[in-house]
Amino acid sequence: MPLGDMRTPLLSNSFDTPEESLPCDPGNPIVGILGSGDYSRSLAMRLVACGYRVVVGSRDPKHIATGQFPDGVQLLTQREAMVGTEKVVFAALYPEYYHTLVGLRDVLAGKVLVDVSNATKLNSGEPSNAERLAELFPESRVVKGFNVVSAWALQTGAHDGSRQVLISSDCPEAKRTVIQLARCMSFLAVDMGGLASSRHIEDAPLRLFPSWGGPLMVTFLLILFFYGYNFLRGVLMPYLSRGQNNFYQLPLETVNETLPAVALVILALVYLPGLWAAALQLVRGTKYSHFPGWLDHWMGRRKQLGLLSFLCAGLHAVYSMCLTLRKASQYRLLDAAYRQVKAGVEHSWEEPQVWRSDFYLSSGILGLGVLTLLAITSLPSVGNALSWREFTFVQSGLGYAALTLSIMHTLFFSWDFAIFSFAYPYYMPPTYLLALILPCLVLVGRLFLALPCLAFRLAKIRRGWESPCHHPPQTQEDTANGVLPRDLSGDV
Amino acid sequence: MPLGDMRTPLLSNSFDTPEESLPCDPGNPIVGILGSGDYSRSLAMRLVACGYRVVVGSRDPKHIATGQFPDGVQLLTQREAMVGTEKVVFAALYPEYYHTLVGLRDVLAGKVLVDVSNATKLNSGEPSNAERLAELFPESRVVKGFNVVSAWALQTGAHDGSRQVLISSDCPEAKRTVIQLARCMSFLAVDMGGLASSRHIEDAPLRLFPSWGGPLMVTFLLILFFYGYNFLRGVLMPYLSRGQNNFYQLPLETVNETLPAVALVILALVYLPGLWAAALQLVRGTKYSHFPGWLDHWMGRRKQLGLLSFLCAGLHAVYSMCLTLRKASQYRLLDAAYRQVKAGVEHSWEEPQVWRSDFYLSSGILGLGVLTLLAITSLPSVGNALSWREFTFVQSGLGYAALTLSIMHTLFFSWDFAIFSFAYPYYMPPTYLLALILPCLVLVGRLFLALPCLAFRLAKIRRGWESPCHHPPQTQEDTANGVLPRDLSGDV
Amino acid sequence: MPLGDMRTPLLSNSFDTPEESLPCDPGNPIVGILGSGDYSRSLAMRLVACGYRVVVGSRDPKHIATGQFPDGVQLLTQREAMVGTEKVVFAALYPEYYHTLVGLRDVLAGKVLVDVSNATKLNSGEPSNAERLAELFPESRVVKGFNVVSAWALQTGAHDGSRQVLISSDCPEAKRTVIQLARCMSFLAVDMGGLASSRHIEDAPLRLFPSWGGPLMVTFLLILFFYGYNFLRGVLMPYLSRGQNNFYQLPLETVNETLPAVALVILALVYLPGLWAAALQLVRGTKYSHFPGWLDHWMGRRKQLGLLSFLCAGLHAVYSMCLTLRKASQYRLLDAAYRQVKAGVEHSWEEPQVWRSDFYLSSGILGLGVLTLLAITSLPSVGNALSWREFTFVQSGLGYAALTLSIMHTLFFSWDFAIFSFAYPYYMPPTYLLALILPCLVLVGRLFLALPCLAFRLAKIRRGWESPCHHPPQTQEDTANGVLPRDLSGDV
Repeated sequence: MPLGDMRTPLLSNSFDTPEESLPCDPGNPIVGILGSGDYSRSLAMRLVACGYRVVVGSRDPKHIATGQFPDGVQLLTQREAMVGTEKVVFAALYPEYYHTLVGLRDVLAGKVLVDVSNATKLNSGEPSNAERLAELFPESRVVKGFNVVSAWALQTGAHDGSRQVLISSDCPEAKRTVIQLARCMSFLAVDMGGLASSRHIEDAPLRLFPSWGGPLMVTFLLILFFYGYNFLRGVLMPYLSRGQNNFYQLPLETVNETLPAVALVILALVYLPGLWAAALQLVRGTKYSHFPGWLDHWMGRRKQLGLLSFLCAGLHAVYSMCLTLRKASQYRLLDAAYRQVKAGVEHSWEEPQVWRSDFYLSSGILGLGVLTLLAITSLPSVGNALSWREFTFVQSGLGYAALTLSIMHTLFFSWDFAIFSFAYPYYMPPTYLLALILPCLVLVGRLFLALPCLAFRLAKIRRGWESPCHHPPQTQEDTANGVLPRDLSGDV
Repeated sequence: MPLGDMRTPLLSNSFDTPEESLPCDPGNPIVGILGSGDYSRSLAMRLVACGYRVVVGSRDPKHIATGQFPDGVQLLTQREAMVGTEKVVFAALYPEYYHTLVGLRDVLAGKVLVDVSNATKLNSGEPSNAERLAELFPESRVVKGFNVVSAWALQTGAHDGSRQVLISSDCPEAKRTVIQLARCMSFLAVDMGGLASSRHIEDAPLRLFPSWGGPLMVTFLLILFFYGYNFLRGVLMPYLSRGQNNFYQLPLETVNETLPAVALVILALVYLPGLWAAALQLVRGTKYSHFPGWLDHWMGRRKQLGLLSFLCAGLHAVYSMCLTLRKASQYRLLDAAYRQVKAGVEHSWEEPQVWRSDFYLSSGILGLGVLTLLAITSLPSVGNALSWREFTFVQSGLGYAALTLSIMHTLFFSWDFAIFSFAYPYYMPPTYLLALILPCLVLVGRLFLALPCLAFRLAKIRRGWESPCHHPPQTQEDTANGVLPRDLSGDV
Repeated sequence: MPLGDMRTPLLSNSFDTPEESLPCDPGNPIVGILGSGDYSRSLAMRLVACGYRVVVGSRDPKHIATGQFPDGVQLLTQREAMVGTEKVVFAALYPEYYHTLVGLRDVLAGKVLVDVSNATKLNSGEPSNAERLAELFPESRVVKGFNVVSAWALQTGAHDGSRQVLISSDCPEAKRTVIQLARCMSFLAVDMGGLASSRHIEDAPLRLFPSWGGPLMVTFLLILFFYGYNFLRGVLMPYLSRGQNNFYQLPLETVNETLPAVALVILALVYLPGLWAAALQLVRGTKYSHFPGWLDHWMGRRKQLGLLSFLCAGLHAVYSMCLTLRKASQYRLLDAAYRQVKAGVEHSWEEPQVWRSDFYLSSGILGLGVLTLLAITSLPSVGNALSWREFTFVQSGLGYAALTLSIMHTLFFSWDFAIFSFAYPYYMPPTYLLALILPCLVLVGRLFLALPCLAFRLAKIRRGWESPCHHPPQTQEDTANGVLPRDLSGDV
């Protein structure tokens, strides 16, 4: 197919001349694949299932076991296959073998060459595989894409997370062709611009939980801080000052004091940015001004923070339920029984202690229960089934319920001895007091925003109303910085 | 585009003239969007990703930051954009700003105007936003739709729960156009009829877990009843008659007696309607008679009831595992040790009590384990991966196993003291006896239906066989009441 | 429509003549459905939603309640409906009623007749429903398909697991037509070959968790072995030799010794095949030789084995947390208190025991936590959202972390008494020593493969490099046995 052919775009531009435009007609085109490995096989299966005809070019087509490829796929030599291909060719081999294809330069000229390869390590400024392929085949039109799709996803159909296909190319027409092909294969193509962005695309499958980095770091630092504080206050200081050996507490008791504190602070961090954003909107009197970048970033990590808080709370619950299994608690109980017998006390019952322990256990269990509901709605398949209002109710309503119950759990646990001076040895307040500061501030802030005057004004602003005294952007630069002009008020 | 153009339907009616009908050709049409907010941006992204050309009409197009909209989207003034749009226009602004568009009446004439707005509160008889829009633009053809789809779903692609788009319009052709557009954007359009139903559609995103209302109410009433009964029997009556202070039991012990009773009764309520339906089919001798409405409704709430039963059972398990953490249980243990030492008893071992406690713990744990498997298969992504037979096996087979284990758990817990008169103070039977009535009835009913004669007849009926003596419908009215005529027997 | 019409294929073969090929044009064709039951109704709904026109043929169309079928569906007599249908007819009735259709043979001649029925019991050599239908209608072209799709999936749209539609037919053209229809209805059609394979397709919905059979059997045998061993060693032998009555341990304690051993061995079985495969690749010096069938099969069951290991570990955790609720543990504690008082020991504290119990509890809790994360990523909706590298990190990295923690849990539990001779009564080593053998071997094997020399060679092989001394296939038969020729090296 000569290059001239390319002038007829696959996507024509008129509603009335359908015979020139068949974007979703996968029945006819012959798609070529270079290479006959696993990925090639999966690609061929999917293309055939979507109605395409497929030609696979192999170095030695006679040696491929029959039945490896679906019916209707032609197995030819690389050259024969490329001659038979009409437009699109997938290069399904490792990039270190691209140079073996240079002999096909003439038959690949003018064709759309799709690079599906992944990077082996995170890119550091070198040209991407796709860029190197484009250098090797200057007369072909190289498109980067499909590398995020696994052979498995190709065979079984596209699912939730794996439906997106990132596409880039320097040739808009070639890109359009591949975007369309992806769409017909039920993927959701995302245009990422020119071939330079292929470095970014090739890195994508290598990145490890990119949205979890910040939240994990925050959690780690909080664990470090609270564990260190507990170690200092409960183990090291008593040893230094009184020679008391509490080191046996390190593997379990200190951990079980650290986890609830961390869970509580992180839970507060989930709701803090929302309050901040509401305050900003109230002060600015408009919702059309963008938030500062760090706030946007923080808001985008609330789900991860919430799940980490749930993880810590869950571990705390399991640790707590294992407390009575410890040898230490058995020894303590036996010693207490010994003391009681020696002292001749028939009834050791202390009513306030009974109420206190039942209250903090109850509020803790209920708080964890509500957090569990929140975590379940974070599952993609559950969250997707919720309407917007249901999602808001769960994440905001139930979230604040969990925060309140957790604060109650902490207060009931400690109310009777936080007020005594022996709770402040070495002038260090108990851990739970430190852990309560931020959550209580968040709760007070939320109650403050629920005051009718503020709540009403906020609701109005979120429906597009703008305060006449909000500061309009002065220059084009403001807009570039994320501040939208006021004239757009009222747009959804 | 003049109104006359509309006479050529987008969906033509012949298989042989494809050039006149391109329902899935999204490449060409220019779709217009009024408004440039978040929703507009997401809509534009999705439309472009699906191959459409998009024109966005803004009040002040020059002030929109570059990069806000994807490449290829034209940003024009509202009037320019509407002139350039071929057929479909989305109105992406809040309904309170619709009146600002009246100046565009002439350029919007004949076009399909899609109202994507939501209601702010549940509708109470007033005209919907779409109806008001239709009043403002009598010459345009207003279609309600897409309001259930969030900006997020538009950007990331349609998922399980959010694939449905409810569409309504008074103009069948306009409706067909939008249904098709939705389909090309990978949504599943559902035709809801005329524009009057837009009130219902606008309410949809506001409804809060509509299918959970009944089951939650039942659970709440059961909790109220059992808690009240336990309070009366275990706390109030002992106090009034003997002055015994059991009030400390209220926060945890009474709750932990209430939860398992509620869980057990609700689990029985999950399987009762299925038995009822089977009995009806057996009595009627046909499966083509519809069930009464309340039974259909009840059957449709079994999943919710099952999950609430699991929630109560899970809370009961956590409460129980926390029992030994309570101060009360420590005090009791210490007092028992004191008494044992005073009485000089070396071995307090009672073999039957050991067996009893191990049996009720085992059956409880296994019952909860089976309920957990049931709950996991209720997750959309897991349930969807099951075949029909697997789903039936899990929901029915494992469900009855969970019910049997729960009944055993309750019986083992109480078998040794339910027969003594001291278990019936104030003539009130123990809670677990009350809670067992319904589950035992359901289990007996299920065993009864498993008798070969009944099971065989039921299987035959469910394959389309009809008893010759079942009552055929006499009149057309019967049919309207949901009774299908017998002549349809054998249809799947 | 005469048979001659069929010569024009629905899928034409040229990219340049779109007017002859409209594979994704569902707007026009009139699809017929025979039968008016639930499945027929759901099918009609979905077809209409996808833009088809639908004619339903009923034995008594006048008796069908209005509103049962969506707008636009024509309800006619069977004969009228079949005359009006252009090409595709669905037979939506139970196969035992197929014979009632023979009168329609003439109007069904040449048409594509889709059999959607299921088998009632697993096929044992008899002709399938579809084959019987093909015998009844020799002039129609029978296609098997859609039987795996439930009425529910038709109405609500296709989800993850239920998107696949298995299709078979002896007429390639008819098959192509139905494959395309399925695709336009957003299903993923899978071509299963000739009509003979319809027996297999009809069996599909009857199979009960086919991929779980092997793993469940392995788990069951392990439970049997370890329970029997524990019974022999801890209950029967002490009774026979010393008359000691430990039978009370059977319902809970013996189970709780069995479960962790089974969980540990199964977890090792998850990682063993991966090591085996790596060793094979290292020895063979290539990745293009297929693994033996049993290894492939085993690799394909790792997820199921992992989930069963998690189930056993989770049950062990719950059993353990319930230990202090047992009457037996209460009696033991009271007796210990009695003995302590009698002996006059004020402090029973033993520091090493405290550390030991805290260490094994901690490592157990953390191991279970990591296993829980693994189990969560096994949920389809979560796993699908992970990139390939994230999935590998979770399943391999976290998996070995869980294995290491579980081994530590077991070692800490037993380190102080495994070395004493009293741990080997009747020459039977403790259960946990048996359970540790395989996991320790797997861990050592993994560390061995992490040696730089082996790790580097393995990485190279997995990128397509081949050792020059690996054995090339000698004959065509080798290839048929799954050994790919070396010339394909470098293909992805």
